[in-house]
Amino acid sequence: MYRALRLLASLPFRPPVAARMASQNSFRVEYDTFGELKVPNDKYYGAQTVRSTMNFKIGGVTERMPIPVIKAFGILKRAAAEVNQDYGLDPKIASAIMKAADEVAEGKLNDHFPLVVWQTGSGTQTNMNVNEVISNRAIEMLGGELGSKKPVHPNDHVNKSQSSNDTFPTAMHIAAAVEVHEVLLPGLQKLHDALEAKSRDFAQIIKIGRTHTQDAVPLTLGQEFSGYVQQLKYAMTRIKAAMPRIYELAAGGTAVGTGLNTRIGFAEKVAAKVAALTGLPFVTAPNKFEALAAHDALVELSGAMNTTACSLMKIANDIRFLGSGPRSGLGELILPENEPGSSIMPGKVNPTQCEAMTMVAAQVMGNHVAVTVGGSNGHFELNVFKPMMIKNVLHSARLLGDAAVSFTENCVVGIQANKDRIAKLMNESLMLVTALNPHIGYDKAAKIAKTAHKNGSTLKATAIELGYLTAEQFDEWVKPKDMLGPK
Amino acid sequence: MYRALRLLASLPFRPPVAARMASQNSFRVEYDTFGELKVPNDKYYGAQTVRSTMNFKIGGVTERMPIPVIKAFGILKRAAAEVNQDYGLDPKIASAIMKAADEVAEGKLNDHFPLVVWQTGSGTQTNMNVNEVISNRAIEMLGGELGSKKPVHPNDHVNKSQSSNDTFPTAMHIAAAVEVHEVLLPGLQKLHDALEAKSRDFAQIIKIGRTHTQDAVPLTLGQEFSGYVQQLKYAMTRIKAAMPRIYELAAGGTAVGTGLNTRIGFAEKVAAKVAALTGLPFVTAPNKFEALAAHDALVELSGAMNTTACSLMKIANDIRFLGSGPRSGLGELILPENEPGSSIMPGKVNPTQCEAMTMVAAQVMGNHVAVTVGGSNGHFELNVFKPMMIKNVLHSARLLGDAAVSFTENCVVGIQANKDRIAKLMNESLMLVTALNPHIGYDKAAKIAKTAHKNGSTLKATAIELGYLTAEQFDEWVKPKDMLGPK
Amino acid sequence: MYRALRLLASLPFRPPVAARMASQNSFRVEYDTFGELKVPNDKYYGAQTVRSTMNFKIGGVTERMPIPVIKAFGILKRAAAEVNQDYGLDPKIASAIMKAADEVAEGKLNDHFPLVVWQTGSGTQTNMNVNEVISNRAIEMLGGELGSKKPVHPNDHVNKSQSSNDTFPTAMHIAAAVEVHEVLLPGLQKLHDALEAKSRDFAQIIKIGRTHTQDAVPLTLGQEFSGYVQQLKYAMTRIKAAMPRIYELAAGGTAVGTGLNTRIGFAEKVAAKVAALTGLPFVTAPNKFEALAAHDALVELSGAMNTTACSLMKIANDIRFLGSGPRSGLGELILPENEPGSSIMPGKVNPTQCEAMTMVAAQVMGNHVAVTVGGSNGHFELNVFKPMMIKNVLHSARLLGDAAVSFTENCVVGIQANKDRIAKLMNESLMLVTALNPHIGYDKAAKIAKTAHKNGSTLKATAIELGYLTAEQFDEWVKPKDMLGPK
Amino acid sequence: MYRALRLLASLPFRPPVAARMASQNSFRVEYDTFGELKVPNDKYYGAQTVRSTMNFKIGGVTERMPIPVIKAFGILKRAAAEVNQDYGLDPKIASAIMKAADEVAEGKLNDHFPLVVWQTGSGTQTNMNVNEVISNRAIEMLGGELGSKKPVHPNDHVNKSQSSNDTFPTAMHIAAAVEVHEVLLPGLQKLHDALEAKSRDFAQIIKIGRTHTQDAVPLTLGQEFSGYVQQLKYAMTRIKAAMPRIYELAAGGTAVGTGLNTRIGFAEKVAAKVAALTGLPFVTAPNKFEALAAHDALVELSGAMNTTACSLMKIANDIRFLGSGPRSGLGELILPENEPGSSIMPGKVNPTQCEAMTMVAAQVMGNHVAVTVGGSNGHFELNVFKPMMIKNVLHSARLLGDAAVSFTENCVVGIQANKDRIAKLMNESLMLVTALNPHIGYDKAAKIAKTAHKNGSTLKATAIELGYLTAEQFDEWVKPKDMLGPK
Repeated sequence: MYRALRLLASLPFRPPVAARMASQNSFRVEYDTFGELKVPNDKYYGAQTVRSTMNFKIGGVTERMPIPVIKAFGILKRAAAEVNQDYGLDPKIASAIMKAADEVAEGKLNDHFPLVVWQTGSGTQTNMNVNEVISNRAIEMLGGELGSKKPVHPNDHVNKSQSSNDTFPTAMHIAAAVEVHEVLLPGLQKLHDALEAKSRDFAQIIKIGRTHTQDAVPLTLGQEFSGYVQQLKYAMTRIKAAMPRIYELAAGGTAVGTGLNTRIGFAEKVAAKVAALTGLPFVTAPNKFEALAAHDALVELSGAMNTTACSLMKIANDIRFLGSGPRSGLGELILPENEPGSSIMPGKVNPTQCEAMTMVAAQVMGNHVAVTVGGSNGHFELNVFKPMMIKNVLHSARLLGDAAVSFTENCVVGIQANKDRIAKLMNESLMLVTALNPHIGYDKAAKIAKTAHKNGSTLKATAIELGYLTAEQFDEWVKPKDMLGPK
Repeated sequence: MYRALRLLASLPFRPPVAARMASQNSFRVEYDTFGELKVPNDKYYGAQTVRSTMNFKIGGVTERMPIPVIKAFGILKRAAAEVNQDYGLDPKIASAIMKAADEVAEGKLNDHFPLVVWQTGSGTQTNMNVNEVISNRAIEMLGGELGSKKPVHPNDHVNKSQSSNDTFPTAMHIAAAVEVHEVLLPGLQKLHDALEAKSRDFAQIIKIGRTHTQDAVPLTLGQEFSGYVQQLKYAMTRIKAAMPRIYELAAGGTAVGTGLNTRIGFAEKVAAKVAALTGLPFVTAPNKFEALAAHDALVELSGAMNTTACSLMKIANDIRFLGSGPRSGLGELILPENEPGSSIMPGKVNPTQCEAMTMVAAQVMGNHVAVTVGGSNGHFELNVFKPMMIKNVLHSARLLGDAAVSFTENCVVGIQANKDRIAKLMNESLMLVTALNPHIGYDKAAKIAKTAHKNGSTLKATAIELGYLTAEQFDEWVKPKDMLGPK
Repeated sequence: MYRALRLLASLPFRPPVAARMASQNSFRVEYDTFGELKVPNDKYYGAQTVRSTMNFKIGGVTERMPIPVIKAFGILKRAAAEVNQDYGLDPKIASAIMKAADEVAEGKLNDHFPLVVWQTGSGTQTNMNVNEVISNRAIEMLGGELGSKKPVHPNDHVNKSQSSNDTFPTAMHIAAAVEVHEVLLPGLQKLHDALEAKSRDFAQIIKIGRTHTQDAVPLTLGQEFSGYVQQLKYAMTRIKAAMPRIYELAAGGTAVGTGLNTRIGFAEKVAAKVAALTGLPFVTAPNKFEALAAHDALVELSGAMNTTACSLMKIANDIRFLGSGPRSGLGELILPENEPGSSIMPGKVNPTQCEAMTMVAAQVMGNHVAVTVGGSNGHFELNVFKPMMIKNVLHSARLLGDAAVSFTENCVVGIQANKDRIAKLMNESLMLVTALNPHIGYDKAAKIAKTAHKNGSTLKATAIELGYLTAEQFDEWVKPKDMLGPK
Repeated sequence: MYRALRLLASLPFRPPVAARMASQNSFRVEYDTFGELKVPNDKYYGAQTVRSTMNFKIGGVTERMPIPVIKAFGILKRAAAEVNQDYGLDPKIASAIMKAADEVAEGKLNDHFPLVVWQTGSGTQTNMNVNEVISNRAIEMLGGELGSKKPVHPNDHVNKSQSSNDTFPTAMHIAAAVEVHEVLLPGLQKLHDALEAKSRDFAQIIKIGRTHTQDAVPLTLGQEFSGYVQQLKYAMTRIKAAMPRIYELAAGGTAVGTGLNTRIGFAEKVAAKVAALTGLPFVTAPNKFEALAAHDALVELSGAMNTTACSLMKIANDIRFLGSGPRSGLGELILPENEPGSSIMPGKVNPTQCEAMTMVAAQVMGNHVAVTVGGSNGHFELNVFKPMMIKNVLHSARLLGDAAVSFTENCVVGIQANKDRIAKLMNESLMLVTALNPHIGYDKAAKIAKTAHKNGSTLKATAIELGYLTAEQFDEWVKPKDMLGPK
């Protein structure tokens, strides 16, 4: 992935502008159709960006448009410039746009994107922020004056054949796909592999099963972990199953989906360029009206992550309960000690990675509802919950991917089975009586179990005491390892 | 509550109509403004009801308008008839409407309300269903012909000074308030009282505390249960805090909130009558535009139930984990055995009441999201998610109230403390070492605890073995009962 | 589908038992391991079912286990009996079980399943309810005495090689898959086809586009509807993508997933039988531990339905807004009049089908959260939110499927384009000025538009008045039909 | 509020440490019970903080513990130091802690809190981060060596009589209460006041009502806005109703709620100090077990904000639809133009503030589900979803408060009524025919309306043409201003 980008990255990169710009306190004047505005001299953005910061003072810096969206815009603008050159855009201008767009894609200009997601629901201001930054950076490369819009105009050149209404959803899909492939899936794969290794390691450890949280018949610890492995395997299957709709790009639909002001073939060529730049199988959306007006594909992806969150909460809960103790819990697993649990009690290991994971799971479930509400409230030719939706999708993908890695490295790989404890609980269990049914009948077996439960004694002692069998018979007939599968 | 209704209930009640009606296969013809329709002869409803059953075949009988809404409509229609009589409605007609409405309020005509909630979002068809049933039943009482609309017209008389747009939200609020008072709050109070009794019973039982699911310092079982008591107490506080907005009735707002076609004073008088009939402090809504166009009050009540669901899930989870075992779990509580847990294992008690309760909690959380989505999607003068919203609110109230009673009677009252197990876990706990800090210092105490943990031995044995203190000193210094509060 | 079942249905069917049973007031005595209980003589269920009705008085008849689950159990029990016969079960007993199970699968014994979903979280009581009903019905067929458990024992024969822990999830998956194929997908397909037909019908009608709810550039009404068609197409794609995990059956895992007490091959054979009986590609779950302990597959399917709900809410909202009026709304669509809208205003058509649909969508979103919460809260070897989860999944599937049909038949097929209104809005629109840009430049075009907006005049009149072009030029250059795609 | 803090702020404040510290590349060595770690020399935090950054690489800088939590910790630590001094803590140490804590409370040390919320679910690491920063800053004030833990020890002095388990929930409640009072309620009040002013301004403007999105009877624009005013008024009522539980502080409960290692009276005194410092009526929680183990109070507050989100989404939706156009929408409201809507179409005003507001509403609904899931998943003596829960609660409060201000300033105050358009739609409306009922009867009125609808003509022209009345009679009888209330 990103093979093409990596090639671009080897091009000579001009040093950061800060050095060549005036101090932070100096401003230049830029204008949009509403008038003039002062723009910090050390920023590439322009008047529309500044205006947005004035009109949308909601939530502070943590609420800025996620960087993956900005990078995706860089990829898109580069692709569009290439295609526009094919359709006649001056190669000098196209080339400068491409270089500036590459810098955006590589995250070199992140400081120039101050806008929060709580803006226009189409993401228009962020599209203009990108247009302004690329325009000014390209102008700078070509020796022009920042803010002059010459020779590279933010609308006429950078946004050529585009509209916020099709570029923003395109950037959403690129960002989501890249985050899934760069963060989410690798994280889940890593956790899958670690759990699978544990499942193999624990294949011979027979333990008591628990249903309804109550003692039940035995299984191996490896079998128990194999369920988690299957959940992770399917988590990845589910996420991949949602990707075909994410790979569809809206670019070429322009304002309402018709493609007005663009050229026949533009949509397909842009999608192909984006695919080449990212190494992901992007295609042009077969129906641009749906691609602008609905974001079902993001709701779908969010749903796959919601299912993943359920899986991870289940697994993390199991591990913390199985690792509870050290004396007064279940105590079957020994979890790694990563940090001081308490200044008072040595031996107190808190399952902190499980806690981080379950908090992440809860967050993903909440994010999914936000995405759902946004996805259901589009009207006519444009859904205007775009920035909120992509923020939540990217948040979920990043949190799940990161938490999977953290959980793997700081917890799963270090889990040890407390074999003594497991064996003790196993052997004390009353349900092993089940194995006696074929030999002495259900009624006598029940009598043994009930008596043992009442007296707090072992099955073996009780069985002998009741005169139903000998110690040797008990040892021969009651073998947990014969209870691990069908016959 | 329902004092007035109970008085009404003592009035002579005519026998069910079934006997006096033709067989189920016979029909009469009724009409609405769209034309004629065949109506089953043994039903009181009319053409608009039949038409709705034809147009909304969604979901089957379990999806019918909840009976509490129907009963609430009975109360409202009775109140409206009384007030209309004050404003000049023919007393003979008003009286017949009141009697028929009382039958609806008492649930005697439940079979005559076949409509599902998935209909017009204003509940118009259910309002008409009620108007038709009361009209026909009143006509019958007065010796007239069913379907003739004479002498009691469903619109002109039963619906006089009303509109679906104000009657349905009024019925919603009446139904919600009655369900809260008849089912939800009594159920929560019962559970609260049972938990409080247990908290007192368990006041002297010292047990190990658990934080992060791990062993921690001790508390009494009574203290642990006192937290649940507080949660229940506040659950009721929260629900009551939401009621003032529920007690506000939309009646008198008619079509858009202005009160067109009603009379000055009608709104206040109807609310007063409903208050008298139900014994609940209903008042007329101070702003009818809000009362028709938004159902924030139901979202708020649903939110209070959502919080209650969180409380109950926490409590039920704790109880099932504390009661897990009997051998391989925590085993501190002994839960009542209510039904066969398994045909194989005696002693396997499944915490089935906890499971019913936690499933109810999950449902209430889901219902809350449905209510939230509906509540946020009103437009202009009318929210048209009314039937869905009230269905979910009533569902949550009923489930929580019923589950609280079931959980109390079949689980909480029968919970016993497994004192031996509790004492054993308590005494084995390594965190009791904390009590030695003031006597031998933190470092030696830590050495004791770490050594005991490593060797799987007791604190006492380890401490003596290490030569830090005597058995007598240990017994004097390590007293869990001194660790239960501040000094 | 159900080909095999249809064959079975042609077998001679004994008349309903009611006639041969005593009156509803008479009881027989049955027992379980907890003691004796009175069972209504006209019911096939036994003691464990009665006991459950006593212990779980939560929510009333609308909360009963959904019939599709009961039918699915009939299919499963039939399949298991066939396989058990292969493994040695007495053919006479197996045959009677199969016949009785077929009756359950065909819905002939629905009245014998009184239990609510708010019971044990494993669905144990419902599994026993099924075992009891099939046992007693089979006993009756064989001339035995109800409640005698001879010659057909509910546990030993009907439940042979099974556990509640694997049968209930198996029935969940069968029920979900059948409901998806019988109700959900056909409903969505029907709506898809109707929208596609409208999209074709409206292909030539040029209308104004709306972004941000504001006037934008034109598209055809057919293009607008094509977006809805795409949403429905993908809704089906998404649901189908979730089915492979639903087709996996837990049967053969028994109590904890190991398959204890079952036979090698049992799992695969049962899945094959169920596949044959239903015509759906069921297979045995590759990992039974996951299949009992997690219900991610249901969360996933619910997520696909949640996305579908978003799509349908968007479409229904658009249609009601486009059909708003008749005078003071957008008025572009004429929706069918299905019922009286108001007794006051002729011409008031309420978009009632849109309202039912959007309420359904909200419910599905809520149900999804309930499923998510349940799915995330499984512990160890068994998730115990099973009945709640399947209730919500089936609820969503049924509501979406039914609502899609109702919306199609009572709304979509009857939608007409209000061509005059569409043309009027189209021609008055100021954004057509965009077409003049290439001819007179952006600045003059802007001047025309701003002047027209300020004066409330038309673009054409304003353009001529300003002297920028002639009437002929305007007519030649401003052609909406040239604005419908890229060039 | 913050009166006491303001006084403190006037104390001499030492210049930021950066100048006195070595460069960012230099480190000092600190240690915790797990060993040594390198700490950046220009940071006050210590080993446990560094360890947390190593163990929890989840989500990046936007995921840091919200600043309001850090500031709340500053307030709490100051209060605790004061109370500890009363109980005997060396005044010199206490005084230094107080000064350092004040700096934390004032936000002067924000850069020293790098931890993300995805850490231990009790917030232990953040509590230690605070202890370390205050300890080192106090040491610095007293001329000691950073990291020496002398003379001010992070645990023994800064954390004296405290535990993460009671300090973190205390900080949660302080942070939530302050954010509600500083941001949320002022924002809602501002919006309330602006809407109320508009409601008064628009009191005489009669407009058509819309129910089911369809034309209905008239009301004034002021009445319509009065519904929004009521929603805002109740939003504030709801939030305030949740505060009593938020004002309860867990401090004094220490590890499990018993208050072990604290002093009698400590809890009450700390709460009183916090109340004095903040000007808010904090009290000590009556039951500390509930205060640590459950966070129902946050779920409740989140629920109040969820209801507020529903209200705001309704209002913002109405305003954007009423302001839709300018030509092809409803066009009754003229919304302020804040930024370029499109480079193509002059006059295109996008309701961007409505879009930001509705996105915020969706986010709050999602956050609420995350809070709900976290709140329901506490176990035993400690809920370990604390950081996630408070993050979401603070996020919702800030977003709602900020968005309310932005929406007010940039949209509501500038809304103008498009009187001509309103009057036109009003006068064309067919529902005015209602006014003729008393004069010519329902049937003739209906004939007029139906004919007018069919012919697209006016009521007046049609009525005259049908010969039912004269132009003078029409003008006398059909007066919308008489339709605005009951008679």
